[in-house]
Amino acid sequence: MVEKLDRESATPLYIQLADVIRAKIQRGDWQPDQRIPSENELNQLYGISRMTARQVLARLVDEGLLFRVQGKGTFVSRSKISTRSPSYQGIREQLEQQGYATDTELLGQRLEPASTRVAQALDIPTGTPTFIVRRLRRVDGTPISVHESHVPESLAPGVLERDLVAEQLCTVLDRDFGLRMTKVLETLETAAASANDAKLLAVHEGTPILQLEQRISSPAGKPFEFTRIRFRGDMVRLEFTYDV
Amino acid sequence: MVEKLDRESATPLYIQLADVIRAKIQRGDWQPDQRIPSENELNQLYGISRMTARQVLARLVDEGLLFRVQGKGTFVSRSKISTRSPSYQGIREQLEQQGYATDTELLGQRLEPASTRVAQALDIPTGTPTFIVRRLRRVDGTPISVHESHVPESLAPGVLERDLVAEQLCTVLDRDFGLRMTKVLETLETAAASANDAKLLAVHEGTPILQLEQRISSPAGKPFEFTRIRFRGDMVRLEFTYDV
Repeated sequence: MVEKLDRESATPLYIQLADVIRAKIQRGDWQPDQRIPSENELNQLYGISRMTARQVLARLVDEGLLFRVQGKGTFVSRSKISTRSPSYQGIREQLEQQGYATDTELLGQRLEPASTRVAQALDIPTGTPTFIVRRLRRVDGTPISVHESHVPESLAPGVLERDLVAEQLCTVLDRDFGLRMTKVLETLETAAASANDAKLLAVHEGTPILQLEQRISSPAGKPFEFTRIRFRGDMVRLEFTYDV
Repeated sequence: MVEKLDRESATPLYIQLADVIRAKIQRGDWQPDQRIPSENELNQLYGISRMTARQVLARLVDEGLLFRVQGKGTFVSRSKISTRSPSYQGIREQLEQQGYATDTELLGQRLEPASTRVAQALDIPTGTPTFIVRRLRRVDGTPISVHESHVPESLAPGVLERDLVAEQLCTVLDRDFGLRMTKVLETLETAAASANDAKLLAVHEGTPILQLEQRISSPAGKPFEFTRIRFRGDMVRLEFTYDV
């Protein structure tokens, strides 16, 4: 069924058309990755000029609701999962509150000499023995993020004997080792999925990743955890709320 | 010149090699977008196994220091500019403190009926007259971000007569219209560069964009500004620091 646009309304046609498209996507009439009508087709369906159709599609592409594929047309984007940084609340808890089923797979945990990058973040000499814990997070069965945490062995001896899938690492560090998260430095950037990411996250190599790095420090200002989370950029959006 | 790895050292060879590569990049011996030696060449240059070379390259790719191009090899990444969210401090001020030369181009400003997306963010009816200000930010002459801000006309009548290039929008809104930034909701995600982004930011369509959206509210909790900033993902990293 094709909605009519109201030519008498004070609301410009391009806004009416944008709303019609939004509604179709919200109702699920148009599914993620489905191709939507071309400018020509919209022109015929709604009797709006191709210029107007182009303007509407460009606006919805900029908003991220639609995406273009060269020579193929315009498609509906997958709607993203919104989550806050894990330093506010465990990501799993947040997703479960939103009604998602999550599971976490332990990819590996070992003791390793700190690389220069990790050593810089943790303010320790390169090569200092450091625990690495790598986990894969799935939502409704779909992998969405790879988590890699680094903690100097001397600050949390034996932490790898704990169950780091059932409990958040920061919970264990706080309760069992007195390492209380106080100051957090986070950096956010995009990266291209490496071959390794691609395998774990079931995406093509090179697809955009949203990378969150956290350096977590104690009240004394001593960094005790460095974590890098690589989210599927097509599935996750991060939220931050604060008072200025 | 080829550094020797120390086989007697307690530091594993793969960490020594990673540090050698980091140092070459930091010293500028290896420039952004330059191809670095292949696993085979590293094996011959440093007498380490191809397995070790592969492990080191994979690690540095994951860190974002290097990137792979299918069939072409491994290249040095461009180092990113670090900046905090503009709600902490104007991005321009931050970049200038870091010694960058910045300029801002006004792309356009006009009064327009709010789209549904903008109306939702500003908690106003769709179609409400809203000011739109679009600016392009350059750093050392290279475009790094497109800023689009939306403010309901009724809250800041005549704001477009102010010089929004010389001054931050939030400064003008606070001083001249009593709209004090108090609560900020930010969302961060990756997006593919639209044709429009590509033209403005001088990247290929589809390259990763780091998109920051901000809803800024007054002490009374009334949203008065919605801003979307699209950063070149290959050039910008965002930092957040806070106490838990």
